[in-house]
This record gives sequence, C-alpha cells and structure tokens, in this order.
Amino acid sequence: MLSSSFELPEDVLRARQNVKWGKYGTDVLPAWVAEMDFSIAHPIQRTLERMVGDHDYGYPDRGGNHGDGTLVAAFRSRMLKHFAWETDPSLILPLSDLVQGTFATILALSEPGDGVILQLPAYPPFHEAINSTGRRLIPYRLEPGSERYSHEPGSLSKLIDPTTKIILLCNPQNPTGRVFEQAELEEIGRVAIERDLVILSDEIHADLVYRGAKHIPIATLSPEIAARTITITSATKGFNIPGLRCGVLYFGSQALKERFHARFPARVLGSPGITGIDATVAAWNHGQPWLDAVLDHLDGNRRRIRDFISTEIPAIQTLMPEATYLGWLDCSRLGLSGSAHDFFLEQGKIGFSAGEFFDPNGHKFVRFNFATSRRIVDRILERMADAVRSNQRG
Amino acid sequence: MLSSSFELPEDVLRARQNVKWGKYGTDVLPAWVAEMDFSIAHPIQRTLERMVGDHDYGYPDRGGNHGDGTLVAAFRSRMLKHFAWETDPSLILPLSDLVQGTFATILALSEPGDGVILQLPAYPPFHEAINSTGRRLIPYRLEPGSERYSHEPGSLSKLIDPTTKIILLCNPQNPTGRVFEQAELEEIGRVAIERDLVILSDEIHADLVYRGAKHIPIATLSPEIAARTITITSATKGFNIPGLRCGVLYFGSQALKERFHARFPARVLGSPGITGIDATVAAWNHGQPWLDAVLDHLDGNRRRIRDFISTEIPAIQTLMPEATYLGWLDCSRLGLSGSAHDFFLEQGKIGFSAGEFFDPNGHKFVRFNFATSRRIVDRILERMADAVRSNQRG
Repeated sequence: MLSSSFELPEDVLRARQNVKWGKYGTDVLPAWVAEMDFSIAHPIQRTLERMVGDHDYGYPDRGGNHGDGTLVAAFRSRMLKHFAWETDPSLILPLSDLVQGTFATILALSEPGDGVILQLPAYPPFHEAINSTGRRLIPYRLEPGSERYSHEPGSLSKLIDPTTKIILLCNPQNPTGRVFEQAELEEIGRVAIERDLVILSDEIHADLVYRGAKHIPIATLSPEIAARTITITSATKGFNIPGLRCGVLYFGSQALKERFHARFPARVLGSPGITGIDATVAAWNHGQPWLDAVLDHLDGNRRRIRDFISTEIPAIQTLMPEATYLGWLDCSRLGLSGSAHDFFLEQGKIGFSAGEFFDPNGHKFVRFNFATSRRIVDRILERMADAVRSNQRG
Repeated sequence: MLSSSFELPEDVLRARQNVKWGKYGTDVLPAWVAEMDFSIAHPIQRTLERMVGDHDYGYPDRGGNHGDGTLVAAFRSRMLKHFAWETDPSLILPLSDLVQGTFATILALSEPGDGVILQLPAYPPFHEAINSTGRRLIPYRLEPGSERYSHEPGSLSKLIDPTTKIILLCNPQNPTGRVFEQAELEEIGRVAIERDLVILSDEIHADLVYRGAKHIPIATLSPEIAARTITITSATKGFNIPGLRCGVLYFGSQALKERFHARFPARVLGSPGITGIDATVAAWNHGQPWLDAVLDHLDGNRRRIRDFISTEIPAIQTLMPEATYLGWLDCSRLGLSGSAHDFFLEQGKIGFSAGEFFDPNGHKFVRFNFATSRRIVDRILERMADAVRSNQRG
C-alpha cells in the first residue's frame, strides 16, 4: 500500500510515543503538529545506531568549545552549498530549539512596550514570544491572491513607529507556504535599514521548497541587511527529528552578537545534546537524497490536495504552498457555526491545527499537515468531503 | 581482566568519540573530565534502543507542557524515595545542563558587583559563572582535617557584606568529595536566613554517596531554608550520560520561581531532547541496581587509591572522598617546580584535571577521576609512583 520507502503505515505510527499520534483517539486521523509520518534518512539513523551501539553518551569530542564543532562546520557547508552563503564560524550559536532563539532575540533586542512586527497568520509560539514578554504585536498581514499569499507592497513602512524594533520574518512562511522572492525580501530589508529594525528570520522550512521556488536567506541580500539580521534554522524540520532538539542561531554581525550576549551569556542558553548534534550533522552532510525523495512525495500530496479540494469541496479556498508540507485552508464559506478545527474534528474525525492559534481572526481556517502517506492524505480528504456534504444536508 | 560487567577495556574506550579519551595521545591515561569509563545501565540502554529502533524522534508525548511530564514525575518519585523530599511539580524546571542553571540563577537573582559565595576548591564553571557575569567571587574555603575537608565553623557569616546575595553550595562537593552533615548545612541555612541570601545548591553528585555518609538536600532542612533555595540536579553524572544533556532546576518557593522567570521566561532556556528525557527517566526509575554495583566498584577504587598513596607516595596528601569518583590530591610536598598537572602529564603520562582550575592557589593539586576499571586505576597509580620516584632521584 505504501509507495515510498519512507512511508509508514498507521499501526506503526500509532505505536510511536509522539504527540502527533497520541493526542487524539484512534478514530481520529491527526494532521496537526509539524512533523512527518516518515522514517528518517539512513545517514541519520546510522549515526544514532552507532552511538547507541557503542554506549557513547559521554562529553562529546566533536571539536569546538562544547562539542559543537562538527555542527558549526555542517551549518557553514550547507549554507554555502545550498544558498551560496558564506558564514563566519564565530557568529554561530547552537541552541536547543528555534522558539528559544525567538524568545532570546526579542528579549535581548527590544524592551517591554516595544513593537515587534509579525506576519499574520503566524506560528503560534511567535505570538507567545511577543505577547508573553510584554512586547506589542504589530500585524503584517499576508493576503491571498489568485496563486499565493503576499503582503501589499509598500504596506510595511506604514506599520512602523519609533518604538518598533524588530520584524519577525518567517521564510518560507508557516502556515501559508510562501517562499518570498528577492523583491519582497528587498522591501523588508530596505525598510529595516531606513527605520533601524532588527530582522529575526526564521528559515527552518528552507529545506522544504518545491521546484519552481527558490529560498533566499535574507542575510545574503546585502552586507547592510546582514548586519541587522539574526537567522535561525534547524535540520529538525526538514529531516524530521524535532524531538532531538538542535538548532542554530546566526548573528549577521559582531555588534548584534554582542548586544545579544549582553543579555544572554552563551552558557545560560544551554546546549544541544549529542544526539541532536550528530543527527543534524548527518542530515545536513548526507541527508539530501532522502530529502529529495520526500519532497517529490510531498509535491504529489500538495497537488492531490489542491485538485481534490477544487473539484470536491470548492467552498474551501486554498492556495498551493511553494514550500512546507502545510496547507492553509480557508473554510469561511462553509457556513460553520463554530471553528473550522472543531467542525472537522467532530464531524470528520480529522485533527487539523486550529487557525485561531495562527491568527486571532483565523477560527474559520485550519492548517493541514500533509506529510504522510498518500493513503492517509486520501482518507483525510474523503473525510473532509463527507463532513462538508453532511453539514450542507443537515 | 575486567571484574565487573560494566567495566570496559582500553581499546573500546579509545574508540569512543568523547573528550575524555580523545584529548590526549594514546600514551596518556586520562583521569580528568567527570564521566565514567563504564557501559550504562540496561534500562537506559533499552529505552534508547527502543527509540532508535522505532525511529521515534518526533515531538514527544510524555505528558507535561513540553513532553517533560515523565521527567517531572521521575524527579519527584526519586527525591521522595531517596531523600524523603516532597516536591511540588509546579516548581520543577527541566534544563539541558546544570551550568545553564547556575548561570541563570546568578543572573536572575543578583546584579553585577554583587557578591556570590563559592566553596573553594570548586568546579571550574562555577568560577566562570561568577566571574564572567561581573559578580564578585567570595571564597569560602574548605580546609583539610585528618579525615575530611570542612569549613571552619562560624566562618561563613564573616564573609558576608550587604552586597552578598547568593551562596553557591556544591553538595556532595566536587572536588573534595565531602557530603555535608546536617549541622554543617544548618549553619549555611541559618546564615542564609539571617543575611537574606539565596542558596543555589548543586546536588548532581547525590547519587554517588558511599556507605557511611548520607546526602541531605539542603531544601529539606526547613520550610524557611527551602523558600530561599534553588536546587539543581541531574541523572547525567551518577548514571553516566552527560552527552544526552538533561537536568532539573527546583525552586524552593513560588517567589523564587517568579523572580527567576522575570529575567528568564521558561522558553528562553530551551528544553532537553527526548534522548535526555527518556534516559533520565529510565535511570531514576530503574537504574538503581546498576548504580549500587558501580558504587561498590568505586568504593574499592577509592580505598585502593588511599592505601596505595599512603604507603607508596606518602608525600601526596589525600583524604578519601565520602561521595563522587573524584580524588583531590595535594602534591605540594613533592617539591615540583611547575604545576602538579603538568608534572604528571609529562613525567607520568597521566591526564588529571589541573588543580588551578578549581582554586587559584591550586596548581600543586590535581583531581583524579577514578571511575574506571581497577586495572586502569592500578596503572595510573604505578605511573604516579614511578614519576615521583624519578623526580626525587633527578
């Protein structure tokens, strides 16, 4: 039944100890938290099997100050190879996760009451990182066009007042799947320079870009933009190892690094464990063939979803993502009384992510994680269509 | 050649990718960084083999806010069983390591220029946590007696001025191996209350206490002491899994927790990965039989070292530790021209930890990590004796 070597059947998935398959009962198909229902790349698996086989859990000898030398080298090599981005090893900070990097950057580079610009809809912890630290969330809306979401050109500079300090960019964007083009990134960079903003660029989905789109790290646009940009990325999303916890924060300049460390000396942020480090190094250095095969499969899924919804459930509006395995579904024309999430959970037995966590006005939206077997994607689509048909009859 | 099932021969140890065996050439026997040359407990190994076998690296379903529910439960259960210590789940903060917890506590609960009392000799990162954050290190010396190190009674209160904010207690103590008795801890608690100090108690060696001594968490002495105590601990030391990175910080009161989180919202500190969490839970819940066997072996080693040194190298002064697998050797009567560390490395091909990292006046001391096979302990002792004899002839 499974068309690719990395697909896993439902019984294996349900036996895992992860939140994705553990949150709901066995009658629900989960399509929420952003991890993939796939076995991982062989090079990652081999490095973990080696470690476990040798009981090699000691203080790691991987070069660098805290055993992170191989991680630093793998990050530099991947950024150079994939994005022609020359990075400076002294400006790389390994972290356990990118939410940590987001909180730390906001706390270090702004004060309570300051404005932080956030693209909406946005990953829920970004809302939390702004709201829970007493910063002011300034919405920078993505609006749907005929093919994709985008910001209205020229709208960014109008959002800024003297207390605005940071723009939090997510590129490729979660949940809309946008991969911003050079001209779009240049507007953000130009405004950041003119209005003296720090750019915090979450690029964790950069490994998951489909043919036809091209990821551009915003820090590569110009030295002036780089100097005010903190980039955060991780192999855990593209290579499906989120539980191992390992990410990288990259300071675009020594000055940003110094401002950051004045608030957070490096050791207060902890450090990734060896399983996260070794898995990340294996992923970045040797995981690309696996990722290419996964992307082919995901590309099929995103097309399948677009085709099915446009013919079978045309009241749902969705645009095909340019990156990520996430669909952002506008269900506002379904005439639902409650939230779209609750409707599909109750009537369809599908566990999507609730739109209201991404956008305060998003309760008629759901996010569809389609990183699963084609068989499960098809079952979810059939359940959606059945639920909508029953609702329209009811 | 190996007397216990967990001992590992030198060729296996040298094949590992850890700093302990990787730092020096193959002619040197390493006895420095605090990890053990032993295979780990079967329950830990089984849980890691299960995870790797299932490719189960997703966002973990272990209860709690961030997949740390089992860790919180295992900490509570172990503290209750071993130390009759009732802990509050809302006051537990999982971390990646205890150096992180030390930096965070010092930064959150004192200001630059404030005094932090540190027992000397002390774990080098504690010096760094005080000095690199611009706090003032106030030495609280441990002095050798006939049987063990201790502080001069009554000396603590004399160290304190109005800018003194924290006492950093290490119990059991690294590197002297002291397990402080109730009366000693009560003096610290009493002074902390009288002079309004926070107690930061590193209890990472509490699993490694020999028969005859008893570990008392200082937070168990009284509610008043608990209310001003932050305890940090981890299974990584006693169960030999430091590379997996997982520890626990415990706030003795809601007020301390609030002061801490005002500076460090929980998510800025990151979180341990699933390998660290699952290994820690397995260790605390099921690792005790392995630990008991390891402690018997270590007890033999500490006695062997005492007996050998007192008869063969009596110019070295050392007291048998009550806990830890660390010997603190006073080599000042050897008449060495340079540091004791350099002497034993160059003349004995032994890689001890250098005493000057534990105490600015400690360059005639070395720390001897004896958590290895009896065979390697004996080879190190013979090398020491040969080096000292050659030096006396030379």
